[in-house]
Amino acid sequence: MFEGPVQRLIDELGRLPGIGQKTAQRLAFHLVTVDDADARRLGQAVLDMRDQVGFCSRCFNVAAAEECAICRDPRRDTSIVCVVERPQDIVVVERTQEFRGRYHVLGGALSPIHGVGPGQLHIDELKQRIPDEGITEIIAATNPTVEGDTTAMYLAREFKPAGVKVTRLASGLPVGGDLDYADELTLGRALVGRSEL
Amino acid sequence: MFEGPVQRLIDELGRLPGIGQKTAQRLAFHLVTVDDADARRLGQAVLDMRDQVGFCSRCFNVAAAEECAICRDPRRDTSIVCVVERPQDIVVVERTQEFRGRYHVLGGALSPIHGVGPGQLHIDELKQRIPDEGITEIIAATNPTVEGDTTAMYLAREFKPAGVKVTRLASGLPVGGDLDYADELTLGRALVGRSEL
Repeated sequence: MFEGPVQRLIDELGRLPGIGQKTAQRLAFHLVTVDDADARRLGQAVLDMRDQVGFCSRCFNVAAAEECAICRDPRRDTSIVCVVERPQDIVVVERTQEFRGRYHVLGGALSPIHGVGPGQLHIDELKQRIPDEGITEIIAATNPTVEGDTTAMYLAREFKPAGVKVTRLASGLPVGGDLDYADELTLGRALVGRSEL
Repeated sequence: MFEGPVQRLIDELGRLPGIGQKTAQRLAFHLVTVDDADARRLGQAVLDMRDQVGFCSRCFNVAAAEECAICRDPRRDTSIVCVVERPQDIVVVERTQEFRGRYHVLGGALSPIHGVGPGQLHIDELKQRIPDEGITEIIAATNPTVEGDTTAMYLAREFKPAGVKVTRLASGLPVGGDLDYADELTLGRALVGRSEL
């Protein structure tokens, strides 16, 4: 139906999360008809991002260098670490301006059903950071879901014996929701009202 | 907030029609975290498409060669031409399997308010095709909107004096809608029941 290169573009756009066949077609035809430079900038932005961006060797945040901008910032409090599931969760917590410590990205949450155990998450790396950076508090900012709660409980069981205070974001987040959709005020209040596990 | 290359990708994704800031962020972080090859295939598909795809020199459909696949097909009836606003409209008409002629893409519809007059559309090129290809009927398959109707009337006024039959898609299409959203059956019926202007 479509010329080969257009069909391939529709296929690739349709692989993106939340983009269906119809939307993929609309986007592809938009890219066919816009100015050449506009379309190429998008394609090049994807390739440049993959060329230039990786993950922070310390906290697994998105990083354009060996370490991410937050880990490189000398003004951050290194004694407190906010543990999140995904890099994009860091952005949401940063927006609250309530947190001045560092982060640690687990790369997901514990989910035995989906075969995600502690070995699949960056938990060993977090363990290593505790003596290295003198960490005294871990905030479990995993999503308020069954998996996120399970992961928070696991972190508490794992790190409290080592003398680390493990806290959980306060209620205020809609249960069963997604951290990514929380507004700044709600998430800010949840940070302030965090409770020890 | 974001690393430069990630922010640039978010900006470019956010320029796409119907993609807001939040969706652009989600898509960008998806592309940050997926397999390298998967992300790069999308970027490359955009660039390849722009390298390989242009517009048909005859009908202005999307084409990976000098002429589009439909114009190159010797089985198509050259005496009847379906005139559409945009290349993606051809796809919708083709799906009905009710039409075996060729197409002509105007590149929009007449809209004096937006400064689109006959000179901005591929109408002169259509005029040239009539003697060249022995065209006897023009189906005005512009959108069922004020602009689309105006364009259809213009085509009738322009080409009927030259002895060309100018027809309009039958009602059945929801007025004020978009050709792109019509289902095959409705559009097929509209093709069969087209009326002379």
